[in-house]
Amino acid sequence: MWMETKAEQQASRRRASFSRRALNYLLLCTGDMEHLDKCMEDQLFVLQLIVWGLRGVTRVILANNPLSGALILVALYWSSPWQGLLGTVGVLVSTLAAVITGHDSAEVEQGLHGFNGMLVSLLMGAFSSAGDWYWWLLLPVFLGSATCVFLFSGLSTLLGRFDLPAAVFPFNITIILFLLCTSPNHPYFPHHPATPPGALQPNSTELIALQVIRGIPLGVGQIFACGALGPSLLILAAVGVYSPLMAVHAVLGSAVGTLAGLSLAVQPNSLYSGLSGFNGALGCMAVGGLFFTFSWRTHLFAIASAFLSAYIDIALSNMLGTVSQHAAGQPLSQPH
Amino acid sequence: MWMETKAEQQASRRRASFSRRALNYLLLCTGDMEHLDKCMEDQLFVLQLIVWGLRGVTRVILANNPLSGALILVALYWSSPWQGLLGTVGVLVSTLAAVITGHDSAEVEQGLHGFNGMLVSLLMGAFSSAGDWYWWLLLPVFLGSATCVFLFSGLSTLLGRFDLPAAVFPFNITIILFLLCTSPNHPYFPHHPATPPGALQPNSTELIALQVIRGIPLGVGQIFACGALGPSLLILAAVGVYSPLMAVHAVLGSAVGTLAGLSLAVQPNSLYSGLSGFNGALGCMAVGGLFFTFSWRTHLFAIASAFLSAYIDIALSNMLGTVSQHAAGQPLSQPH
Amino acid sequence: MWMETKAEQQASRRRASFSRRALNYLLLCTGDMEHLDKCMEDQLFVLQLIVWGLRGVTRVILANNPLSGALILVALYWSSPWQGLLGTVGVLVSTLAAVITGHDSAEVEQGLHGFNGMLVSLLMGAFSSAGDWYWWLLLPVFLGSATCVFLFSGLSTLLGRFDLPAAVFPFNITIILFLLCTSPNHPYFPHHPATPPGALQPNSTELIALQVIRGIPLGVGQIFACGALGPSLLILAAVGVYSPLMAVHAVLGSAVGTLAGLSLAVQPNSLYSGLSGFNGALGCMAVGGLFFTFSWRTHLFAIASAFLSAYIDIALSNMLGTVSQHAAGQPLSQPH
Repeated sequence: MWMETKAEQQASRRRASFSRRALNYLLLCTGDMEHLDKCMEDQLFVLQLIVWGLRGVTRVILANNPLSGALILVALYWSSPWQGLLGTVGVLVSTLAAVITGHDSAEVEQGLHGFNGMLVSLLMGAFSSAGDWYWWLLLPVFLGSATCVFLFSGLSTLLGRFDLPAAVFPFNITIILFLLCTSPNHPYFPHHPATPPGALQPNSTELIALQVIRGIPLGVGQIFACGALGPSLLILAAVGVYSPLMAVHAVLGSAVGTLAGLSLAVQPNSLYSGLSGFNGALGCMAVGGLFFTFSWRTHLFAIASAFLSAYIDIALSNMLGTVSQHAAGQPLSQPH
Repeated sequence: MWMETKAEQQASRRRASFSRRALNYLLLCTGDMEHLDKCMEDQLFVLQLIVWGLRGVTRVILANNPLSGALILVALYWSSPWQGLLGTVGVLVSTLAAVITGHDSAEVEQGLHGFNGMLVSLLMGAFSSAGDWYWWLLLPVFLGSATCVFLFSGLSTLLGRFDLPAAVFPFNITIILFLLCTSPNHPYFPHHPATPPGALQPNSTELIALQVIRGIPLGVGQIFACGALGPSLLILAAVGVYSPLMAVHAVLGSAVGTLAGLSLAVQPNSLYSGLSGFNGALGCMAVGGLFFTFSWRTHLFAIASAFLSAYIDIALSNMLGTVSQHAAGQPLSQPH
Repeated sequence: MWMETKAEQQASRRRASFSRRALNYLLLCTGDMEHLDKCMEDQLFVLQLIVWGLRGVTRVILANNPLSGALILVALYWSSPWQGLLGTVGVLVSTLAAVITGHDSAEVEQGLHGFNGMLVSLLMGAFSSAGDWYWWLLLPVFLGSATCVFLFSGLSTLLGRFDLPAAVFPFNITIILFLLCTSPNHPYFPHHPATPPGALQPNSTELIALQVIRGIPLGVGQIFACGALGPSLLILAAVGVYSPLMAVHAVLGSAVGTLAGLSLAVQPNSLYSGLSGFNGALGCMAVGGLFFTFSWRTHLFAIASAFLSAYIDIALSNMLGTVSQHAAGQPLSQPH
């Protein structure tokens, strides 16, 4: 029984080696895909730019994998073609701006100059109340994405002295600058007024449990300002392609963020849309997915980080939302 | 006359040595009481924890003396048993959190991980509008006190590069986070709305001089969110046990802060309750009491520091109070 | 024809040497005028103080030239004698405070301790709604100017570790502190409420092109809170005395700032008064005028810097203006 003929042995070996090779090919598509860099060295600039851009797309979720980037872009186009276009423009403009201004090519190749521009473009589109295909929006998108490159190199020099990364600070600065410069009633670039998530409802409404649970995967999608279920799951899959451990922490973090939202009785819309979860997801991924030495200590720390991220998100949203609401109410009250 | 018999000499020596010894014993209870650390080395953990906690209590007023800590705790329980309980819980939770997470034991023993947690607990209790003995408040008190430990070690690393101490930044961050996350109308954790001290009165009221003067010792008590005269004087005595020079500067700083409040015509309530004085007291104690080389230059600098502290306090209270009042008014205006 | 007699040669040489010498004397009045320091070494203290003060006045526009300083002071007195007096008091008080507290004499001589005090005084005067010659204003002017000296040396130590200058941070801190401590309805120090430049007009008004163009030179004057055309041109001339390249960049930056204001449809008053331009002017001068190695790269970077300065100015004005307007509206709404 346990003795096989030579032919059988060879056949099983062939099958084993085939499945091993298939697995190897699959594994080549996960992680950092460093081998791809060698293949791309003597390719056309346009192809190289596409790979740099796709790496940039995944830097938003702290990953670095062109295949994940392609999946995320598909998810964005699926959710809204206009948002997909804005994201593509943002990542390309900021990567090109870094190439033109002669930034370190190693940084450009790893997508470090793309993700801030992409986030700025996506959020400008998401906040704009002028509707889709409002082409004038491309003007701030171009300027904002290019500005991120300068802010990134400036902040890197400063924060590098503390061994801290510049991360998404350039995006934060640029988008807050844009939102403060314009207003909900702006003649050229109107945007939706921010609502403090802690504002009380006129009538206390019952929470729908299924909607709250649906908000957990949506929280992963909201990292890219995407609020549809299918694309959010595709983005989650893209995280899993880079690192399954990170995908687990993304869902866990989003659940923790939703729990934090529940504990403070935020508005139901905030829970249903996944906006309560996305900061928790990012916090949990950063701590639990990037250290990689998976220990229970790291795991617990990742959960604590998700809670803290979620509470800070609610606090800042309340503060900025209050100021924003007042600004929005100002012009209406002037005619009186 | 000037020649004494041997017996008289011995008696006078014995009296002198007795009063010297009594003074020595008294002096042992002042200052840092480092000798106590040796006695505590091989005691029960619970006793050690109590000493660490009491040292932590006095770190709020920049002192380090278990006896002062005990006096302050008595003052807090005297003023309000619920506030006393909250303070005790806060200092114990954050000290224990530091022990469990394995922080530097020398820092823990000097009470450096207790005072932020205590301030967070006391201020959560003071801002809460849910009344005393609202046991749910212990949930944020536990979480907030533990968070302070992590923020303290994180900020110490960062600020240590500039030779700056983390001081009460962890408390500031945590309490502002808590206040921004909740609101005056929050269903679980309502808090009193902050009033800008510079807001005009509907009817200009006359100041009562005696009440203003009464606000000066109250300013020392307000460091621990305590607004009663007796306990405030006891806290002042506790400062005096550690260092009489510091107690003098505390009263001086509170008086300077009240003067600063008068110069800007803040609300009478702010003056009467001692809220105008407590930041001046802290600023004056830090500069005048900690340098210890008492010179007129230091003294003048301490007064300048008290004025600056008091004005910055009024400025920030005005700004945050304005935002807070608007946030509080929001839900009321929505039904219209 | 080309052969001249000896007499003619000598006459032409004499004329050439006269015009060269006149030019040399003129050139001595431009730039840093370092030769003046040697002449002033053994003069009376009052004369030295005047030179230090005049250098301090020009530090506001990043220059360092006593003659420019004198021209700017003349412009300020021309525009408003009260503002001129406040500026003079501010620069003298803070320079004297630095002398008395024993700051580095090289820094004092170069006017580094004068410009923050001057800006504080000018802006306190400009924001005050108590009218000219309200002598009580001298009290905060004295205190604020002296505070700048301490903040400057404190911030220099901190920012020096990053090779960053303290620049006008002390002025920013002091004036925001003053404005937050007082309010538009303050009984002692009332000030004009800040209006967010992005607030919508009740009726959309047509822009008057000539007024907008007039706002460009006014933007240079607004650096010193001066809103009249003649004095603004004199201030521009004072910049030109120090460095003509800087004057060109000042006008260019002000134009860029006005363009940025137009692109975001700010209030017409903001464009007409030059308030949209002054931050752009400062940003453009700092980058384009201080590097001195005039290249197209520097020039383009100066324009980018002007745009960024102008947008940040609009963003911050919108945010602070919103908070301020609400604070102003508070007492009015209380009697209801």
